[in-house]
Amino acid sequence: MTPFTPTAKTTLKRLPQRGEFDREAVYQILDEALVCHIGFVADGQPFVIPTSYGRVGDTLYVHGSAASRMMKTLGGKVPVCITVTLIDGLVLARSAFHHSINYRSVVVFGQAELIEDEPGKMAALAAITEHIVPGRWAEVRQPNPQELKATTVLAVPLEEASAKIRTGDPKDDDEDMAIPVWAGQLPLRLTPGSPINDSLLTPGIEAPDYVRNYKRA
Amino acid sequence: MTPFTPTAKTTLKRLPQRGEFDREAVYQILDEALVCHIGFVADGQPFVIPTSYGRVGDTLYVHGSAASRMMKTLGGKVPVCITVTLIDGLVLARSAFHHSINYRSVVVFGQAELIEDEPGKMAALAAITEHIVPGRWAEVRQPNPQELKATTVLAVPLEEASAKIRTGDPKDDDEDMAIPVWAGQLPLRLTPGSPINDSLLTPGIEAPDYVRNYKRA
Repeated sequence: MTPFTPTAKTTLKRLPQRGEFDREAVYQILDEALVCHIGFVADGQPFVIPTSYGRVGDTLYVHGSAASRMMKTLGGKVPVCITVTLIDGLVLARSAFHHSINYRSVVVFGQAELIEDEPGKMAALAAITEHIVPGRWAEVRQPNPQELKATTVLAVPLEEASAKIRTGDPKDDDEDMAIPVWAGQLPLRLTPGSPINDSLLTPGIEAPDYVRNYKRA
Repeated sequence: MTPFTPTAKTTLKRLPQRGEFDREAVYQILDEALVCHIGFVADGQPFVIPTSYGRVGDTLYVHGSAASRMMKTLGGKVPVCITVTLIDGLVLARSAFHHSINYRSVVVFGQAELIEDEPGKMAALAAITEHIVPGRWAEVRQPNPQELKATTVLAVPLEEASAKIRTGDPKDDDEDMAIPVWAGQLPLRLTPGSPINDSLLTPGIEAPDYVRNYKRA
Protein backbone atom coordinates (compact mmCIF):
# COMPACT_ATOMS: atom_id res chain seq x y z
CA MET A 1 0.00 0.00 0.00
CA THR A 2 1.21 3.54 -0.76
CA PRO A 3 2.21 5.35 2.43
CA PHE A 4 0.52 8.61 3.39
CA THR A 5 2.29 11.74 2.20
CA PRO A 6 3.40 13.82 5.19
CA THR A 7 1.85 17.29 5.30
CA ALA A 8 2.33 20.29 7.57
CA LYS A 9 -0.61 19.08 9.69
CA THR A 10 0.51 15.45 9.99
CA THR A 11 4.24 15.97 10.50
CA LEU A 12 5.31 15.80 14.13
CA LYS A 13 7.42 18.80 15.10
CA ARG A 14 8.67 17.05 18.23
CA LEU A 15 9.79 13.41 18.55
CA PRO A 16 9.39 12.74 14.80
CA GLN A 17 10.53 9.14 15.41
CA ARG A 18 7.07 8.51 16.89
CA GLY A 19 5.37 9.45 13.61
CA GLU A 20 4.20 6.71 11.24
CA PHE A 21 2.94 7.23 7.71
CA ASP A 22 2.78 3.59 6.68
CA ARG A 23 -0.77 2.98 5.52
CA GLU A 24 -0.95 -0.56 6.88
CA ALA A 25 0.18 0.58 10.35
CA VAL A 26 -2.42 3.37 10.32
CA TYR A 27 -5.19 0.97 9.23
CA GLN A 28 -4.31 -1.57 11.92
CA ILE A 29 -4.87 1.08 14.58
CA LEU A 30 -8.11 2.24 12.95
CA ASP A 31 -9.34 -1.35 12.80
CA GLU A 32 -8.46 -2.16 16.41
CA ALA A 33 -9.96 0.92 18.07
CA LEU A 34 -13.67 0.97 18.82
CA VAL A 35 -14.58 4.65 18.83
CA CYS A 36 -13.12 7.74 17.26
CA HIS A 37 -13.29 11.36 18.38
CA ILE A 38 -14.53 13.66 15.61
CA GLY A 39 -13.52 17.29 15.74
CA PHE A 40 -15.33 19.99 13.80
CA VAL A 41 -15.88 23.71 14.08
CA ALA A 42 -19.25 25.44 14.40
CA ASP A 43 -19.35 29.24 14.78
CA GLY A 44 -15.64 29.26 15.61
CA GLN A 45 -16.14 26.81 18.46
CA PRO A 46 -14.43 23.39 18.32
CA PHE A 47 -16.54 20.33 19.13
CA VAL A 48 -15.10 16.87 19.88
CA ILE A 49 -17.63 14.05 19.86
CA PRO A 50 -17.01 10.32 20.36
CA THR A 51 -18.67 8.00 17.86
CA SER A 52 -18.33 4.58 16.27
CA TYR A 53 -17.04 4.16 12.75
CA GLY A 54 -16.03 1.63 10.12
CA ARG A 55 -13.39 1.42 7.43
CA VAL A 56 -13.63 0.02 3.89
CA GLY A 57 -10.41 0.33 1.92
CA ASP A 58 -9.28 3.94 1.92
CA THR A 59 -12.52 5.35 3.34
CA LEU A 60 -13.74 5.87 6.89
CA TYR A 61 -17.49 5.88 7.55
CA VAL A 62 -19.42 7.44 10.40
CA HIS A 63 -23.15 7.57 10.94
CA GLY A 64 -25.65 9.33 13.12
CA SER A 65 -29.18 10.53 13.40
CA ALA A 66 -30.17 12.74 10.49
CA ALA A 67 -31.54 15.10 13.17
CA SER A 68 -28.23 15.49 15.03
CA ARG A 69 -26.32 18.77 15.12
CA MET A 70 -23.06 16.98 14.41
CA MET A 71 -24.29 15.17 11.31
CA LYS A 72 -25.89 18.33 9.94
CA THR A 73 -22.66 20.28 10.44
CA LEU A 74 -20.42 17.53 9.07
CA GLY A 75 -22.63 17.04 6.01
CA GLY A 76 -21.94 20.64 5.00
CA LYS A 77 -18.45 19.97 3.57
CA VAL A 78 -16.50 21.31 6.51
CA PRO A 79 -12.97 20.32 7.55
CA VAL A 80 -12.89 17.54 10.12
CA CYS A 81 -10.25 15.91 12.26
CA ILE A 82 -10.88 12.31 13.31
CA THR A 83 -8.67 10.89 16.05
CA VAL A 84 -8.46 7.35 17.35
CA THR A 85 -6.42 6.41 20.42
CA LEU A 86 -5.46 3.00 21.82
CA ILE A 87 -4.02 3.00 25.33
CA ASP A 88 -1.41 0.26 25.69
CA GLY A 89 0.02 0.97 29.10
CA LEU A 90 1.50 3.29 31.68
CA VAL A 91 5.16 4.23 31.60
CA LEU A 92 6.60 4.85 35.06
CA ALA A 93 9.95 6.58 35.12
CA ARG A 94 12.27 7.52 37.97
CA SER A 95 11.51 11.21 37.40
CA ALA A 96 8.02 12.73 37.23
CA PHE A 97 9.05 14.46 34.00
CA HIS A 98 9.58 11.22 32.06
CA HIS A 99 6.30 9.57 33.01
CA SER A 100 4.31 8.73 29.93
CA ILE A 101 1.64 6.54 28.40
CA ASN A 102 2.27 3.89 25.76
CA TYR A 103 -0.32 4.45 23.07
CA ARG A 104 -1.07 4.20 19.38
CA SER A 105 -3.08 7.03 17.88
CA VAL A 106 -4.18 8.02 14.41
CA VAL A 107 -5.17 11.49 13.28
CA VAL A 108 -7.11 11.89 10.02
CA PHE A 109 -7.74 15.25 8.36
CA GLY A 110 -10.31 15.60 5.62
CA GLN A 111 -13.78 16.56 4.61
CA ALA A 112 -16.85 14.39 5.04
CA GLU A 113 -18.99 13.50 2.05
CA LEU A 114 -22.65 12.66 2.39
CA ILE A 115 -23.51 9.15 1.16
CA GLU A 116 -27.01 9.37 -0.24
CA ASP A 117 -27.62 6.28 -2.37
CA GLU A 118 -29.24 3.36 -0.59
CA PRO A 119 -26.68 0.64 -1.50
CA GLY A 120 -23.84 2.94 -0.47
CA LYS A 121 -25.50 3.66 2.88
CA MET A 122 -26.17 -0.05 3.45
CA ALA A 123 -22.55 -0.96 2.75
CA ALA A 124 -21.30 1.74 5.13
CA LEU A 125 -23.68 0.68 7.91
CA ALA A 126 -22.59 -2.93 7.43
CA ALA A 127 -18.96 -1.81 7.80
CA ILE A 128 -19.74 0.12 11.00
CA THR A 129 -21.63 -2.84 12.52
CA GLU A 130 -18.92 -5.31 11.51
CA HIS A 131 -16.27 -2.96 12.92
CA ILE A 132 -17.95 -3.19 16.34
CA VAL A 133 -18.74 -6.92 16.25
CA PRO A 134 -17.39 -8.91 13.29
CA GLY A 135 -19.95 -11.52 12.25
CA ARG A 136 -22.98 -9.58 13.47
CA TRP A 137 -24.42 -7.91 10.37
CA ALA A 138 -25.60 -11.11 8.64
CA GLU A 139 -27.43 -12.33 11.76
CA VAL A 140 -29.59 -9.33 12.58
CA ARG A 141 -32.44 -7.49 10.93
CA GLN A 142 -30.93 -5.06 8.49
CA PRO A 143 -32.04 -1.43 8.22
CA ASN A 144 -35.44 -0.80 6.63
CA PRO A 145 -36.18 2.21 4.41
CA GLN A 146 -37.40 4.39 7.30
CA GLU A 147 -34.29 3.62 9.38
CA LEU A 148 -32.05 4.36 6.39
CA LYS A 149 -33.81 7.67 5.89
CA ALA A 150 -33.39 8.60 9.56
CA THR A 151 -29.66 7.85 9.39
CA THR A 152 -27.04 10.15 7.92
CA VAL A 153 -23.95 8.37 6.63
CA LEU A 154 -20.73 10.23 5.96
CA ALA A 155 -17.56 9.12 4.22
CA VAL A 156 -14.14 10.58 4.97
CA PRO A 157 -11.46 9.66 2.41
CA LEU A 158 -8.23 8.48 4.05
CA GLU A 159 -5.87 10.81 2.23
CA GLU A 160 -4.19 12.90 4.94
CA ALA A 161 -3.43 10.82 8.02
CA SER A 162 -0.65 9.65 10.28
CA ALA A 163 -0.14 7.53 13.35
CA LYS A 164 1.79 8.32 16.49
CA ILE A 165 3.12 5.44 18.53
CA ARG A 166 4.94 5.17 21.84
CA THR A 167 6.15 1.80 23.04
CA GLY A 168 8.58 0.34 25.52
CA ASP A 169 10.50 1.36 28.62
CA PRO A 170 10.66 4.75 30.31
CA LYS A 171 13.56 6.92 29.17
CA ASP A 172 15.17 8.34 32.27
CA ASP A 173 18.09 10.72 32.41
CA ASP A 174 21.45 9.10 33.21
CA GLU A 175 21.77 10.96 36.51
CA ASP A 176 18.43 9.55 37.72
CA MET A 177 19.20 5.87 37.15
CA ALA A 178 20.33 5.27 40.72
CA ILE A 179 17.13 6.60 42.31
CA PRO A 180 15.84 3.59 44.27
CA VAL A 181 12.29 3.58 42.92
CA TRP A 182 10.61 0.98 40.73
CA ALA A 183 10.43 1.88 37.05
CA GLY A 184 8.76 0.07 34.19
CA GLN A 185 5.52 -0.39 32.32
CA LEU A 186 2.03 -1.40 33.38
CA PRO A 187 0.24 -2.84 30.31
CA LEU A 188 -3.42 -1.91 29.89
CA ARG A 189 -5.91 -3.54 27.55
CA LEU A 190 -9.63 -3.20 26.80
CA THR A 191 -10.84 -6.60 27.96
CA PRO A 192 -14.25 -8.22 27.48
CA GLY A 193 -16.18 -9.59 30.44
CA SER A 194 -18.89 -12.26 30.26
CA PRO A 195 -21.81 -11.58 27.93
CA ILE A 196 -24.98 -10.35 29.67
CA ASN A 197 -28.22 -11.66 28.18
CA ASP A 198 -30.83 -9.05 27.30
CA SER A 199 -33.46 -9.17 30.06
CA LEU A 200 -36.05 -9.91 27.37
CA LEU A 201 -33.98 -12.58 25.58
CA THR A 202 -35.98 -15.54 24.29
CA PRO A 203 -35.01 -18.46 26.57
CA GLY A 204 -32.64 -20.97 25.01
CA ILE A 205 -30.69 -18.56 22.81
CA GLU A 206 -27.00 -18.59 23.68
CA ALA A 207 -24.38 -15.93 23.03
CA PRO A 208 -22.62 -16.74 19.75
CA ASP A 209 -18.90 -17.52 19.46
CA TYR A 210 -18.13 -14.09 18.03
CA VAL A 211 -19.40 -12.61 21.31
CA ARG A 212 -17.99 -15.21 23.71
CA ASN A 213 -14.54 -15.09 22.08
CA TYR A 214 -14.62 -11.38 21.33
CA LYS A 215 -11.36 -9.53 20.99
CA ARG A 216 -10.23 -6.40 19.22
CA ALA A 217 -7.88 -6.78 16.26
CA MET B 1 -21.81 20.49 44.56
CA THR B 2 -23.64 22.90 42.28
CA PRO B 3 -24.66 21.20 39.03
CA PHE B 4 -23.48 22.57 35.69
CA THR B 5 -25.83 25.02 34.03
CA PRO B 6 -27.01 23.61 30.69
CA THR B 7 -26.06 25.76 27.71
CA ALA B 8 -26.85 25.58 24.00
CA LYS B 9 -23.59 23.68 23.47
CA THR B 10 -24.04 21.18 26.30
CA THR B 11 -27.75 20.43 25.91
CA LEU B 12 -28.44 17.23 23.97
CA LYS B 13 -30.92 17.81 21.18
CA ARG B 14 -31.59 14.10 20.84
CA LEU B 15 -32.05 11.57 23.68
CA PRO B 16 -31.88 14.27 26.38
CA GLN B 17 -32.35 11.53 29.01
CA ARG B 18 -28.71 10.58 28.35
CA GLY B 19 -27.50 14.03 29.40
CA GLU B 20 -26.08 14.57 32.88
CA PHE B 21 -25.24 17.93 34.45
CA ASP B 22 -24.55 16.68 37.96
CA ARG B 23 -21.07 17.87 38.84
CA GLU B 24 -20.17 14.77 40.87
CA ALA B 25 -21.17 12.46 38.01
CA VAL B 26 -19.10 14.51 35.56
CA TYR B 27 -16.09 14.48 37.90
CA GLN B 28 -16.29 10.72 38.44
CA ILE B 29 -15.95 10.20 34.68
CA LEU B 30 -13.10 12.72 34.44
CA ASP B 31 -11.31 10.98 37.32
CA GLU B 32 -11.73 7.46 35.92
CA ALA B 33 -10.63 8.14 32.33
CA LEU B 34 -6.93 8.19 31.54
CA VAL B 35 -6.64 10.43 28.49
CA CYS B 36 -8.73 13.22 27.06
CA HIS B 37 -9.07 14.42 23.47
CA ILE B 38 -8.48 18.17 23.15
CA GLY B 39 -10.07 19.96 20.24
CA PHE B 40 -8.92 23.36 19.05
CA VAL B 41 -8.97 25.36 15.85
CA ALA B 42 -5.91 26.64 13.97
CA ASP B 43 -6.43 28.51 10.70
CA GLY B 44 -10.01 27.25 10.51
CA GLN B 45 -8.86 23.64 10.76
CA PRO B 46 -9.98 21.52 13.74
CA PHE B 47 -7.32 19.47 15.54
CA VAL B 48 -8.09 16.66 18.00
CA ILE B 49 -5.12 15.48 20.07
CA PRO B 50 -5.07 12.85 22.83
CA THR B 51 -3.28 13.81 26.02
CA SER B 52 -3.18 13.07 29.73
CA TYR B 53 -4.69 15.45 32.25
CA GLY B 54 -5.49 15.95 35.91
CA ARG B 55 -8.27 17.56 37.92
CA VAL B 56 -8.09 19.65 41.08
CA GLY B 57 -11.48 20.88 42.27
CA ASP B 58 -13.19 22.74 39.47
CA THR B 59 -10.12 22.95 37.22
CA LEU B 60 -8.72 20.60 34.60
CA TYR B 61 -4.97 20.70 33.90
CA VAL B 62 -3.09 19.63 30.80
CA HIS B 63 0.59 19.89 30.06
CA GLY B 64 2.93 19.54 27.16
CA SER B 65 6.24 20.61 25.72
CA ALA B 66 6.58 24.38 25.57
CA ALA B 67 7.76 23.79 21.97
CA SER B 68 4.61 21.97 20.84
CA ARG B 69 2.20 23.44 18.31
CA MET B 70 -0.76 22.44 20.45
CA MET B 71 0.47 24.11 23.62
CA LYS B 72 1.39 27.29 21.76
CA THR B 73 -2.05 27.45 20.16
CA LEU B 74 -3.91 26.61 23.37
CA GLY B 75 -1.94 29.16 25.38
CA GLY B 76 -3.30 31.91 23.13
CA LYS B 77 -6.73 32.10 24.82
CA VAL B 78 -8.63 30.16 22.16
CA PRO B 79 -11.84 28.19 22.67
CA VAL B 80 -11.22 24.51 23.39
CA CYS B 81 -13.35 21.42 23.67
CA ILE B 82 -12.03 18.63 25.89
CA THR B 83 -13.72 15.25 25.60
CA VAL B 84 -13.23 12.15 27.71
CA THR B 85 -14.82 8.80 26.84
CA LEU B 86 -15.06 5.57 28.83
CA ILE B 87 -16.18 2.51 26.89
CA ASP B 88 -18.26 0.21 29.12
CA GLY B 89 -19.49 -2.37 26.65
CA LEU B 90 -21.11 -3.36 23.40
CA VAL B 91 -24.87 -3.37 23.01
CA LEU B 92 -26.09 -6.04 20.60
CA ALA B 93 -29.68 -5.65 19.46
CA ARG B 94 -31.88 -7.79 17.21
CA SER B 95 -31.80 -5.10 14.53
CA ALA B 96 -28.65 -3.52 13.11
CA PHE B 97 -30.23 -0.10 13.71
CA HIS B 98 -30.36 -0.48 17.49
CA HIS B 99 -26.79 -1.63 17.99
CA SER B 100 -24.95 0.69 20.31
CA ILE B 101 -22.08 1.11 22.73
CA ASN B 102 -22.46 1.62 26.47
CA TYR B 103 -20.25 4.53 27.39
CA ARG B 104 -19.78 7.48 29.68
CA SER B 105 -18.41 10.64 28.12
CA VAL B 106 -17.80 14.19 29.26
CA VAL B 107 -17.50 17.24 27.06
CA VAL B 108 -15.95 20.41 28.49
CA PHE B 109 -16.03 23.77 26.72
CA GLY B 110 -13.81 26.59 27.82
CA GLN B 111 -10.67 28.54 27.35
CA ALA B 112 -7.25 27.47 28.57
CA GLU B 113 -5.27 29.71 30.87
CA LEU B 114 -1.48 29.57 31.04
CA ILE B 115 -0.16 28.70 34.50
CA GLU B 116 3.12 30.55 34.85
CA ASP B 117 4.03 30.60 38.54
CA GLU B 118 6.26 27.76 39.70
CA PRO B 119 4.15 26.51 42.64
CA GLY B 120 1.05 26.52 40.42
CA LYS B 121 2.85 24.52 37.74
CA MET B 122 4.17 22.06 40.32
CA ALA B 123 0.72 21.49 41.78
CA ALA B 124 -0.75 20.91 38.32
CA LEU B 125 2.00 18.46 37.35
CA ALA B 126 1.48 16.61 40.62
CA ALA B 127 -2.23 16.35 39.80
CA ILE B 128 -1.51 15.01 36.31
CA THR B 129 0.96 12.41 37.62
CA GLU B 130 -1.38 11.37 40.44
CA HIS B 131 -4.24 11.12 37.95
CA ILE B 132 -2.27 8.52 35.98
CA VAL B 133 -0.86 6.60 38.96
CA PRO B 134 -2.11 7.61 42.41
CA GLY B 135 0.75 7.39 44.90
CA ARG B 136 3.50 8.04 42.37
CA TRP B 137 4.38 11.73 42.76
CA ALA B 138 5.91 11.48 46.22
CA GLU B 139 8.19 8.59 45.22
CA VAL B 140 9.87 10.00 42.13
CA ARG B 141 12.23 12.85 41.38
CA GLN B 142 10.13 15.95 40.98
CA PRO B 143 10.59 18.43 38.12
CA ASN B 144 13.68 20.63 38.26
CA PRO B 145 13.72 24.27 37.09
CA GLN B 146 14.80 23.38 33.52
CA GLU B 147 12.06 20.75 33.19
CA LEU B 148 9.50 23.19 34.56
CA LYS B 149 10.61 25.78 32.03
CA ALA B 150 10.35 23.29 29.17
CA THR B 151 6.79 22.37 30.19
CA THR B 152 3.72 24.44 29.42
CA VAL B 153 0.87 23.95 31.88
CA LEU B 154 -2.66 25.00 31.05
CA ALA B 155 -5.74 25.24 33.24
CA VAL B 156 -9.28 24.90 31.92
CA PRO B 157 -11.97 25.97 34.39
CA LEU B 158 -14.79 23.42 34.64
CA GLU B 159 -17.66 25.82 34.05
CA GLU B 160 -19.42 24.56 30.92
CA ALA B 161 -19.56 20.79 30.86
CA SER B 162 -21.89 17.83 30.68
CA ALA B 163 -21.76 14.07 30.63
CA LYS B 164 -23.53 11.67 28.31
CA ILE B 165 -24.18 8.17 29.54
CA ARG B 166 -25.65 5.05 27.96
CA THR B 167 -26.17 1.96 30.07
CA GLY B 168 -28.08 -1.28 30.00
CA ASP B 169 -29.90 -3.50 27.53
CA PRO B 170 -30.46 -2.94 23.83
CA LYS B 171 -33.78 -1.26 22.99
CA ASP B 172 -35.33 -3.23 20.17
CA ASP B 173 -38.60 -2.47 18.43
CA ASP B 174 -41.56 -4.60 19.54
CA GLU B 175 -41.90 -6.23 16.14
CA ASP B 176 -38.28 -7.46 16.28
CA MET B 177 -38.46 -9.22 19.64
CA ALA B 178 -39.18 -12.63 18.11
CA ILE B 179 -36.13 -12.61 15.83
CA PRO B 180 -34.17 -15.69 16.99
CA VAL B 181 -30.82 -14.00 17.49
CA TRP B 182 -28.90 -13.46 20.71
CA ALA B 183 -29.19 -9.95 22.15
CA GLY B 184 -27.49 -8.40 25.14
CA GLN B 185 -24.37 -6.65 26.33
CA LEU B 186 -20.70 -7.49 26.22
CA PRO B 187 -18.96 -5.55 29.02
CA LEU B 188 -15.55 -4.05 28.21
CA ARG B 189 -13.03 -2.71 30.67
CA LEU B 190 -9.52 -1.28 30.53
CA THR B 191 -7.65 -3.95 32.48
CA PRO B 192 -4.07 -3.92 33.78
CA GLY B 193 -1.70 -6.75 32.96
CA SER B 194 1.40 -7.69 34.98
CA PRO B 195 3.95 -4.93 35.57
CA ILE B 196 7.01 -5.10 33.29
CA ASN B 197 10.29 -4.12 34.94
CA ASP B 198 12.33 -1.47 33.15
CA SER B 199 15.18 -3.30 31.40
CA LEU B 200 17.60 -1.13 33.36
CA LEU B 201 15.87 -1.57 36.73
CA THR B 202 18.23 -1.88 39.71
CA PRO B 203 17.96 -5.55 40.79
CA GLY B 204 15.92 -6.13 43.93
CA ILE B 205 13.40 -3.30 43.46
CA GLU B 206 9.85 -4.66 43.28
CA ALA B 207 6.79 -3.05 41.74
CA PRO B 208 4.90 -1.19 44.49
CA ASP B 209 1.35 -2.01 45.57
CA TYR B 210 -0.11 0.98 43.74
CA VAL B 211 1.19 -0.61 40.51
CA ARG B 212 0.44 -4.26 41.29
CA ASN B 213 -3.11 -3.46 42.45
CA TYR B 214 -3.73 -0.72 39.91
CA LYS B 215 -7.25 0.05 38.89
CA ARG B 216 -9.06 3.06 37.51
CA ALA B 217 -11.61 4.82 39.70
